[in-house]
Amino acid sequence: MTSAVNFKDKLALFAEHWSPKVVAKMNDYHFKLVKFQGEFVWHNHPDTDETFIVLEGEMTIHLRDGEVKLGPGEMYVVPKGVEHKPFAEHECHAMLVEPVGVVNTGDAGGELTAPLDVWI
Amino acid sequence: MTSAVNFKDKLALFAEHWSPKVVAKMNDYHFKLVKFQGEFVWHNHPDTDETFIVLEGEMTIHLRDGEVKLGPGEMYVVPKGVEHKPFAEHECHAMLVEPVGVVNTGDAGGELTAPLDVWI
Repeated sequence: MTSAVNFKDKLALFAEHWSPKVVAKMNDYHFKLVKFQGEFVWHNHPDTDETFIVLEGEMTIHLRDGEVKLGPGEMYVVPKGVEHKPFAEHECHAMLVEPVGVVNTGDAGGELTAPLDVWI
Repeated sequence: MTSAVNFKDKLALFAEHWSPKVVAKMNDYHFKLVKFQGEFVWHNHPDTDETFIVLEGEMTIHLRDGEVKLGPGEMYVVPKGVEHKPFAEHECHAMLVEPVGVVNTGDAGGELTAPLDVWI
């Protein structure tokens, strides 16, 4: 990476939901942009925390014991092993920060599992 | 952390420049908010990459062989060991992402060295 990454420019390059795209690497962590709409699956990441930063729109992270609502300029870190289900009524653009190799559906798998390490 | 972190709310809690405040932890990494204005010192971080994400305003990261200009919604990862000097003509609000324990002035030290691990 020899110049700045512009989030809006990168977000204009794809339309599909629930399919994170890598835009930067820091040590062994990836920064990914993703578009959410609708309901994801309950899952957890047994080996790592996972960071959500909302850039545009609104989303809810459902937890077994509550929920976290996020809007633009807000972030939340889902702790390792904690079950969660992202939801967005309308399209929401977010950044994920997590170790290289983390699968979006975690322990759950299934049809919403996105390809890993897709750079844009 | 049991609820979302709102960047604007957190940024309203401090005024000083070049003094990063921790707002979240993911595994052994910290997310820090910082206000830049003026010229920082040349330094590098021998053991880690360092991520800059601009939230408001504009900044330049001077490198020995060039510069990277960043505005809102833009990020850059300074590679491990690469000398850099942040600069902002007007106040700029940014997020840093880096391992717990990284000192803001890196190998350079000096009077701009900020206290570590200050949470807001």
